[in-house]
Amino acid sequence: MADLKTAAVHTMTNKSWTLAECCEKYAAAGFGGISVWRNVIEPIGVAEASKIVRSSGLKVPALVRGGFFPAFDPSVRDAALDDNKRCIDEAAAIGAEMVVLVVGAVVGMPLTEARKQVAEGISKLLDHAATNKVKLAIEPLHPMYAADRSSINRMKEARDVCEQLKSPWVGIACDVYHVWWDPDLESEIALAGKQGTLFGFHVCDWRPNTRDLLNDRGVMGEGCIDIKTIRSWVERAGFAGLNEIEIFSTEKWMLDQDDYVKQIKRAYIENV
Amino acid sequence: MADLKTAAVHTMTNKSWTLAECCEKYAAAGFGGISVWRNVIEPIGVAEASKIVRSSGLKVPALVRGGFFPAFDPSVRDAALDDNKRCIDEAAAIGAEMVVLVVGAVVGMPLTEARKQVAEGISKLLDHAATNKVKLAIEPLHPMYAADRSSINRMKEARDVCEQLKSPWVGIACDVYHVWWDPDLESEIALAGKQGTLFGFHVCDWRPNTRDLLNDRGVMGEGCIDIKTIRSWVERAGFAGLNEIEIFSTEKWMLDQDDYVKQIKRAYIENV
Repeated sequence: MADLKTAAVHTMTNKSWTLAECCEKYAAAGFGGISVWRNVIEPIGVAEASKIVRSSGLKVPALVRGGFFPAFDPSVRDAALDDNKRCIDEAAAIGAEMVVLVVGAVVGMPLTEARKQVAEGISKLLDHAATNKVKLAIEPLHPMYAADRSSINRMKEARDVCEQLKSPWVGIACDVYHVWWDPDLESEIALAGKQGTLFGFHVCDWRPNTRDLLNDRGVMGEGCIDIKTIRSWVERAGFAGLNEIEIFSTEKWMLDQDDYVKQIKRAYIENV
Repeated sequence: MADLKTAAVHTMTNKSWTLAECCEKYAAAGFGGISVWRNVIEPIGVAEASKIVRSSGLKVPALVRGGFFPAFDPSVRDAALDDNKRCIDEAAAIGAEMVVLVVGAVVGMPLTEARKQVAEGISKLLDHAATNKVKLAIEPLHPMYAADRSSINRMKEARDVCEQLKSPWVGIACDVYHVWWDPDLESEIALAGKQGTLFGFHVCDWRPNTRDLLNDRGVMGEGCIDIKTIRSWVERAGFAGLNEIEIFSTEKWMLDQDDYVKQIKRAYIENV
């Protein structure tokens, strides 16, 4: 029986809601926190967003998302760095603990080269992150996103970057959806704990017969992921942050969102 | 410039064709071989299938597919073994060098347990494989199939089973679609070469913005996989078999199949 106060919900889970609605509904539902996607800040500006989030009483594990570092054109890489710095600024403004990084990949660029550019990109953000006291969490994305979204597809490759940069501001966001299948998951989680890099833990579920690569995630318990076991590994590794619920689902986005939040509550309590 | 004689085509690539049509068209196109899916044998029986394949002059790297070993119910596991033995019989009958194994996974069963049952299942086929001189090739499937199709998702886990069983009849079918993203791919291919377990090499491509998890593969060159580089690793590892073209694509199945085979020829020559 997981305690709702240990959970934060990603605003993208309820895609149709404004930031104000998300804050109000998540707080009323009893969740402990909210992770904010940039698309809900964009229409109102960061000052207003900050006011809304801070008055909600919710903790804010993460602003989502920065990243997309690699590019063939150096000027595109520079533009990405500028955007990542703005992202860090926004995170600091709304009181988010970390920025989640979807690191990027480029069709036609070897993944090894992409990962080099990722490490280089993150290294150029370290000062800005430290100044703003915002952590940077590399999120390994499922190998099915290796073509154009993420050249980091396992905890291991995220660890490689952490070990290379050796900064207290760089760590890993571990999302069960992306890594549940990895035979090295348990040992990599333990290692991230030891290295102090286990910054985030995201939950949802993998539906058998997934109908879409992006937007067909399941609510916890609807799929095949043994979330409780992975959570036990994460806690044994010393993770004490909020467990972030992040579900992209075209099917669920069409539901009455208040009913859907009730379903998520039950699912979290029973299956995380 | 790849030589067409080094290629075999999987019948499933041209799903609407009968076995006779596949043999006739692939031979006429100049391909060196054919890999036969069981669905084209089923309507005509194995004796007739054997006659058709043997008179085509095409080499036959593989019969596709056996596997699906794990199950909660032991009687289901036994039934799978029986079916795999029939599959080996069919392979021997049509002169196929190997049976490709899609090893299976079960929702709710830990992948570690599934892999144990896979190794156990394969071990019970070894005598039958040796008697019939048919090799068994474990095909690591992309992690997006870990829920219910394959508990073996990297070369590494396939190697674990090979090392455990230590049989000249057990090896690996390496399909670029499933493994191209794996940071350990080059070293695992080299190791498979050393261990004598690199039985098969399959090519197709991964489309960015893949629209379907099963049937949206690209023709070589349409996607992001650096097939030539992977082929060079495979050849350096000593692989001397045919390169098998295996493309499942709802979009391509709707094309005129003769035109489509011409496209595949060009793609193989230019991009493999």
